[in-house]
Amino acid sequence: MKLASLKHQRDGKLIVVSRDLTRAVDATDIAPTLQAALDNWSSLSPVLEKRYLSLNDNQCEGSFAFDPSACASPLPRAYQWADGSAYVNHVELVRKARGAEVPATFWTDPLMYQGMSDGFLGPQEDIPLCDEAWGCDFEAEIAVITDDVPMASTAADSADHIKLLMLVNDVSLRNLIPGELAKGFGFFQSKPASAFSPVAVTPDELGDAWEDNKVHLPLEVHLNHTQFGAPNAGVDMTFDFSQLVAHVAKSRHVSAGTIVGSGTVSNVDRSKGSCCLAERRMLEIIEHGEAKTPFMKHGDQVDIEMHDADGHSIFGKISQTVVPYSGNKA
Amino acid sequence: MKLASLKHQRDGKLIVVSRDLTRAVDATDIAPTLQAALDNWSSLSPVLEKRYLSLNDNQCEGSFAFDPSACASPLPRAYQWADGSAYVNHVELVRKARGAEVPATFWTDPLMYQGMSDGFLGPQEDIPLCDEAWGCDFEAEIAVITDDVPMASTAADSADHIKLLMLVNDVSLRNLIPGELAKGFGFFQSKPASAFSPVAVTPDELGDAWEDNKVHLPLEVHLNHTQFGAPNAGVDMTFDFSQLVAHVAKSRHVSAGTIVGSGTVSNVDRSKGSCCLAERRMLEIIEHGEAKTPFMKHGDQVDIEMHDADGHSIFGKISQTVVPYSGNKA
Repeated sequence: MKLASLKHQRDGKLIVVSRDLTRAVDATDIAPTLQAALDNWSSLSPVLEKRYLSLNDNQCEGSFAFDPSACASPLPRAYQWADGSAYVNHVELVRKARGAEVPATFWTDPLMYQGMSDGFLGPQEDIPLCDEAWGCDFEAEIAVITDDVPMASTAADSADHIKLLMLVNDVSLRNLIPGELAKGFGFFQSKPASAFSPVAVTPDELGDAWEDNKVHLPLEVHLNHTQFGAPNAGVDMTFDFSQLVAHVAKSRHVSAGTIVGSGTVSNVDRSKGSCCLAERRMLEIIEHGEAKTPFMKHGDQVDIEMHDADGHSIFGKISQTVVPYSGNKA
Repeated sequence: MKLASLKHQRDGKLIVVSRDLTRAVDATDIAPTLQAALDNWSSLSPVLEKRYLSLNDNQCEGSFAFDPSACASPLPRAYQWADGSAYVNHVELVRKARGAEVPATFWTDPLMYQGMSDGFLGPQEDIPLCDEAWGCDFEAEIAVITDDVPMASTAADSADHIKLLMLVNDVSLRNLIPGELAKGFGFFQSKPASAFSPVAVTPDELGDAWEDNKVHLPLEVHLNHTQFGAPNAGVDMTFDFSQLVAHVAKSRHVSAGTIVGSGTVSNVDRSKGSCCLAERRMLEIIEHGEAKTPFMKHGDQVDIEMHDADGHSIFGKISQTVVPYSGNKA
């Protein structure tokens, strides 16, 4: 099943989207918003699924052409966005570039930060940036959405609570990060609003590509219409999504609608390219002694998408352009 | 005006509470939840205010006795909970106990972390704790709730966006903190669900005690019915709430219903006591070379309250007991 949220007030309007992403149909009679559907997932998802099947069969009255640019993020705002760093290879590179070791525990205990979730950018909305000197970067990732996960759930328990998957652009302000991490409390101003793919899909939509709680397909990133990277999200993922969700649940209950991210996808095989500018810059520093690729400037565009083995887009495309933000005008 | 949320489904039922905290009346016809009221604060708050005045005048049909134990936190779940460390004196103590200096920037740039907000404990609900060895502590704080704050708002701009105030118990698992901070991404498992006071109040309820965006009253903490501390929240607060909100808004829009915390209230005057066990333990380490006060055990109770100059409780009482949590039962 594929679900999306048309831009509408703060929480969007729930729609069901056809498998081929060409058609959509209103679902607000079943649940007004995706959060409302997640709040009652076990009773509402079968009803949504039925409408999805009828839409795919062209049996659905009132369907209309699906327009990803009319979409908010599937959850336009959420109660939790917890982002991991499951591709430890990426973490190792970042550290190597500054001459630091990766502690052994990084391979057994997930790195994760609490991200802001009070308002996400739409999948094809501009990224407002006050100051190019902040070092704007994209991070292409996969994320899952859970229903309620009881405190102290194991990874095995947590797997069943993964209800939907999305792509993410975890926008990062690289030049604000060193100062924030030095303070010891983690990211804050350096992680502004993220954007998610136009549609969220149930794991069964991935077929064989969803295995061991990982997505075994390339995540494709284009910068200004040139391919930047396409590492396979199922390769070199040290922690799978069930382990990441269990990490969130260790000391607290986890509520329906929680989004858990994989962190920047990264393969040890360098020929696959990168999912963020910072990683390419690290490779340049390691190879040439200095970074050559600049961070994003006003006008730069990043596209993030994933195709199945038959070449069909699964989640629709994240496509965002960095634009100037001149002060207090919202 | 004083508002609260009766326990009901995930987001509670909005009620208006009388100034003396004895009576309450349903307000779901105005807004079903506090979040809904905050989403449309400029149009709905005058209507809520009118009902509040009529309740205080005993002119309100259908009013009932106010029972804080029937309350969820005013926002039972929220889209953002950003907690500062505005009492830098407290930060200095924590560092001093481990022989570290406070960087000079800590006095000019607020420390803040992104907290989990997908489900708060009710003000008089038990604190479920899997393992006493995690070092459970309370942190008594003040918090504000904002409406929408545009990106890049200054402190002066931000002051007008402070709509409500609450007390907080920011539950902390002290023995999980060193490992998490060493990883460099900040708190995560060490900060489980917080609890907020039974009622949230508009700043005008504080009268003269709300000045310069600070609350100039003692925050009273009792541990197992013995006074533990009552430092004045208006004293030694290095960053006021307008500065803390502006910190949140530096690189991103801030959505209505965002909760911003002060961090543990702490006075340089040691005779005022402390608002968390960790601070008392630091003082013991500095004085005696070792901490004597243990962290909370199953059965320990913490109460947090604030009275006005006339001895009336402003926010109602946070009263929580630590209880065992034995695995996956939610």
